[in-house]
Parts: sequence; C-alpha cells; structure tokens
Amino acid sequence: MRVLGIDPGLQTTGFGVVDVDGAQLHYVASGTIKTRDAAQGDLPGRLKIIFDGVQEVVRRYQPTTASVEIVFVNVNPQSTLLLGQARGAALAGLVSCQLSVSEYTALQMKKAITGHGLARKEQIQEMVARLLKLPAVPSKDAADALGIAICHAHAGRSFDAIAKAGGTLTRRAHAHYKGGRSY
Amino acid sequence: MRVLGIDPGLQTTGFGVVDVDGAQLHYVASGTIKTRDAAQGDLPGRLKIIFDGVQEVVRRYQPTTASVEIVFVNVNPQSTLLLGQARGAALAGLVSCQLSVSEYTALQMKKAITGHGLARKEQIQEMVARLLKLPAVPSKDAADALGIAICHAHAGRSFDAIAKAGGTLTRRAHAHYKGGRSY
Repeated sequence: MRVLGIDPGLQTTGFGVVDVDGAQLHYVASGTIKTRDAAQGDLPGRLKIIFDGVQEVVRRYQPTTASVEIVFVNVNPQSTLLLGQARGAALAGLVSCQLSVSEYTALQMKKAITGHGLARKEQIQEMVARLLKLPAVPSKDAADALGIAICHAHAGRSFDAIAKAGGTLTRRAHAHYKGGRSY
Repeated sequence: MRVLGIDPGLQTTGFGVVDVDGAQLHYVASGTIKTRDAAQGDLPGRLKIIFDGVQEVVRRYQPTTASVEIVFVNVNPQSTLLLGQARGAALAGLVSCQLSVSEYTALQMKKAITGHGLARKEQIQEMVARLLKLPAVPSKDAADALGIAICHAHAGRSFDAIAKAGGTLTRRAHAHYKGGRSY
C-alpha cells in the first residue's frame, strides 16, 4: 500500500508519500504546494495551483490511497471559508484521480505518531523523521502530511487486526468527523 | 460569449448557461447538481459529485467563461467550512477545464437582475424568467445560477462601455470580495 497524506491549506498544502509493507514504513517523497506567490485576490487561480499540484503528485508517485487532515474552524470565519475552499480543491484533486480518501483529525495524527494528542510541531517532525529513518527532519507542513499518511497506515493495521479477530468495525469508522457531526 | 453561472452549495449546486450577444441574452440550460442522496458523512464522495457535475456541465454546454457566487460565512462555523469545501470543489471543476472565473456577491447579482440588493428569491426567479423569456420560473437554485451568469453579462457590458470611454478599470475589479479582503 502506498499512502499519500495531505495537509491542506490555502497558502501551503503539504504532501507526503509513504509505502506501507506490513509494519514496515518506507519514505517515498514529501513536499509542499505553495500558492503564496500567486496574484493576491485571485482565489480561483490559487485553487487551481492546489488542484493541479495534487494531481501532479498523484501522477508522479501513483499512491494506492489517500488520507487528508480534517481542518477545523478558525477564530476568523473568513479564514475558515478560505481554508474550506483550499481543502475542497485538494480533495477534488484526489477524487478526480479515483483515489479513495480517508480523513483524520490532527489529534488522531498526533496520537498515532507520538502516542499523545498534545505533541508540539517539533515533536511531530522528530518522530516522523525517526519512524521513516530520514537523515534530517522534514519541514512542518511536510511532516504533518507524512504524519497523516503514517496515521492511515496505523489505522489500516488496527482495522486488519480487528478483522482477523472477527470484529465488525468497518474501515469507514475512522472517516467520521470527531464529535460525530454529519453533513 | 457563453456564460456558465454557478451557485455553489454542499447539498445543491445550481448552474445556469446563458448566451450573450451584445445586449441580447439567450437561455441555453439550467439545473442543479445534488449530493443529498450520497452516503451521509462521506464528504470526499459528495465533493466528487460536485466536481464531476461541474465538469459534465462544461463538457456538455461548452461555455466560454464562468461566474460563481461568492459565498458568505454562516452563523454555524462548521457549515461555513463545509460550504467552503463545496465551493472549492466547484471552482476546481471550472479551472480544471481551463475556464476563466469571475466572482460576484449575491448583492451584486440581485442589483444586476432587479435593480436593488434587497430582492427576495421569488423576485429573482421572476426577473430571470422575464429577462430570458422563459415559459416558467426556474427553481430557486437554478435562478440564482442564471442570475450570476446574467450579472457577468451585465458587468462585461459595463466594462466594455468603460473601455470605449477610455476608462482604465480592469475586468478584475469585480472579482474582489466585498469589503476588500485579500487572501
């Protein structure tokens, strides 16, 4: 299984690609899609950079599945609206490539990577570097995206274990928004 | 010029296609893309329906340009985030087809259609039917989308008139969010 993790944002969208072979994790690639240099005020143009960038990453690394961080409402409602549009464009890039998409909160990702939900950014970077045996720590955006990919690998193993034990938990269970919101 | 107007929403995205020939407007098509029947909780799947639906409308009617309603923050921040993602997927569908996109607020659209910004939904439906010589009033979502397309046709004429008068206003001016927010 090759997992593409995405940490969406309007200015910077992080991506990370990880191969999962049983309990083994192998780093494939990571980076960021930046729209900061795009013309100010041209939202459609910036969303196109995100959409095209995600499609390009999928074409280049051919992941078998994708996982995307669940974003939360900001104190500034206008920022929330812009972040939502960025995430919508990133998700459109993934589903237009026929990829299945799982969703995880930052809390779930932090727990999967460090064992607790209060980890700082630097701890995520260090643990991601250790888990993937990287020679240096990745950037914060790339680390979060790699963390989301690793989180999905862990979830997959948990679900496999439950399935082997005869459990009935579906793979979809982890895709729900925390707090059980439906939309 | 053939304009595709889009009124984005997570449950229902309205679309309307209008041919503009000088001051003449000709109705081409209108309708809605609905995600209500999609599995509850599967946001990526619902965004795919919006993205695919917008691309399908573009392929079928071959518009030369697109205009999209600017959505506003909701009292419920979670709804704002979901609406943002729906709009992001719709915009991704347009820009992935290499269409230029203009953006108008509901206020601008109402002024363009009825002459004032306080028009009720029914007035928009009636005026859109009259302007396009429709045999019956379109649904509210379709009327808003047709209204956004007509708004762009009017703006284009205004900009043409300004250009002929030697003005320097750029066509981008109307694309800014009301209140002058930059992002």
